[in-house]
Amino acid sequence: MKNPIITLKNQPKISASYSVVGHLEKEGPLGNLFDEYSDNDKFGKDTWEKAESEMQLRAVKGAIKRSGLNEYEIDLLLAGDLLNQCVSSSYAITNFDIPYLGIYGACSTCAEGLGLGACLCDSKIIDSCCAVTSSHYCSSERQFRFPLEYGGQRTPTAQWTATGSGAFVIGNEGKTKVTEVLFGKAIDKGITDINNMGAAMAPSAIDTIVRYFTNSEHSPDYFDKIITGDLGFEGSEILKDLLLGNGIDITKNHMDCGLMLFDKEKQDVHAGGSGCGCSAVVMAADIIPKLESGELKNVLFLGTGALMSPMTLFQGGSIPAICHLVHLSSE
Amino acid sequence: MKNPIITLKNQPKISASYSVVGHLEKEGPLGNLFDEYSDNDKFGKDTWEKAESEMQLRAVKGAIKRSGLNEYEIDLLLAGDLLNQCVSSSYAITNFDIPYLGIYGACSTCAEGLGLGACLCDSKIIDSCCAVTSSHYCSSERQFRFPLEYGGQRTPTAQWTATGSGAFVIGNEGKTKVTEVLFGKAIDKGITDINNMGAAMAPSAIDTIVRYFTNSEHSPDYFDKIITGDLGFEGSEILKDLLLGNGIDITKNHMDCGLMLFDKEKQDVHAGGSGCGCSAVVMAADIIPKLESGELKNVLFLGTGALMSPMTLFQGGSIPAICHLVHLSSE
Repeated sequence: MKNPIITLKNQPKISASYSVVGHLEKEGPLGNLFDEYSDNDKFGKDTWEKAESEMQLRAVKGAIKRSGLNEYEIDLLLAGDLLNQCVSSSYAITNFDIPYLGIYGACSTCAEGLGLGACLCDSKIIDSCCAVTSSHYCSSERQFRFPLEYGGQRTPTAQWTATGSGAFVIGNEGKTKVTEVLFGKAIDKGITDINNMGAAMAPSAIDTIVRYFTNSEHSPDYFDKIITGDLGFEGSEILKDLLLGNGIDITKNHMDCGLMLFDKEKQDVHAGGSGCGCSAVVMAADIIPKLESGELKNVLFLGTGALMSPMTLFQGGSIPAICHLVHLSSE
Repeated sequence: MKNPIITLKNQPKISASYSVVGHLEKEGPLGNLFDEYSDNDKFGKDTWEKAESEMQLRAVKGAIKRSGLNEYEIDLLLAGDLLNQCVSSSYAITNFDIPYLGIYGACSTCAEGLGLGACLCDSKIIDSCCAVTSSHYCSSERQFRFPLEYGGQRTPTAQWTATGSGAFVIGNEGKTKVTEVLFGKAIDKGITDINNMGAAMAPSAIDTIVRYFTNSEHSPDYFDKIITGDLGFEGSEILKDLLLGNGIDITKNHMDCGLMLFDKEKQDVHAGGSGCGCSAVVMAADIIPKLESGELKNVLFLGTGALMSPMTLFQGGSIPAICHLVHLSSE
């Protein structure tokens, strides 16, 4: 059976990244690293949905500018988000005169966009692209759980949808290379608790990690960091425990974007951050710059997504999940 | 400025297609061509959403079987649909042990999947993939307009969301080649009428067609058919009129999947069919077999999608649209 890992022969580069966040993310441990933020999470708009679109717009503009390319040199935009019909992406993208592919992977969208964009650039189908995603706490809560005005109590396993957008320009320039991609499978282990996304997503991360290390020449200790985004406290513990049962030890170098974005002691975010924007802003503001500077050499980024629909949960359905893997290297 | 048309050097093939439809589609002009149908549109399931997933499941299984490949030989599934969080795709895909990329392009999803899948196969990033999409009249009406039980009156410009799923295996075997792809841009002309998708989508089709013929060596009469999917009566008229104003005459060879699927005189579908499944089943059951047999030599397929969200329309937003182009050839 052939190796499912896609090895990118031309090793496309991440030429630039850019991050836009809300006030809570700005107050968190990575606060100083973000490029833009809004004090009231509205970004000058009158609805949360428009605010989310505005974040994507700023992130794409910022990333393209930082890459040194002009807008007309970007061949493709890859965008998606958590909102129904990926609508914050659609509205943001109408501002650009660039072909657009809509993608959907819930919170795995950042990794899906990076992986897919890198595959298309590697093959010279396109020369460069920009991958972007976003989430907004207020638009997500209203859509997936309760209106904010209701003041619903959150359970300890609930994750906090990050307010933020991260964009990445992929092309031929830069020090951070995308060397391998492994797309995830949709895994459904029967989890039905809308307030425990970590438990729903951990099995998909395990599936992808096991497939990767079964087929890769690398072992976990080859990587400076193995970064999941975003399992939170609950899902991260499940992941590490079950991987040990599979003979894979990632306890030393595992990090989770949901745990990095907020301060568990000082910020009331329960099981940690989540949402498309969570891993996008952590990767854009913290990890990519550290790869760029050489502080990190090899990073395995695992974007996890709960493909969860309130409608089908009301009908008794469970929550399928997916995890896409991207190997980033500055060696 | 470089040519935005992606020319596929290795010309990947559509190895197999398979279609599953509801009772109204079965009673339409193309009824005899479809592979499977359900008398009551439920496909043995107890919700419309599960019925839609079941259609996708059957379409993927049917297409893979017809391609002569085994499931483990398919490197990637590309799937998306109209439901919130693309959930009919997510549930269908959990039945397959194949990596999955979620895509979103509303009714353009069939063209997005075909185009993207062909790009990935052309570059040998993968050897083969299966692209699938679906829509269901009952799940869509409930989500986008009114519950069926309400018995809402439809306007003359309203299109009828098709109940159907079409799947396509792309690989190295077959007579139908994918020779060119042109991804669309998100175009927003300010249309806010949820019952006039044709008017919202026509400008995106115009943008893509003008970009294609501006950069292609071919003229419209090179193509046996120029097939939009699915502008319906309203959008098709707008398209042909405005293209004439741009000096492009497609009146002789234009067809629209929304007009082909139903009989306007005998079936009460107002402005014609729409939905991800509409173009997918017309392409899978009618066009691909005619390319396979040599009856058609060159087809330009333009998948149009209204990136429409009820939430943002309630907030006064308009409807962005997109149109992806795929050039199919059996020469």
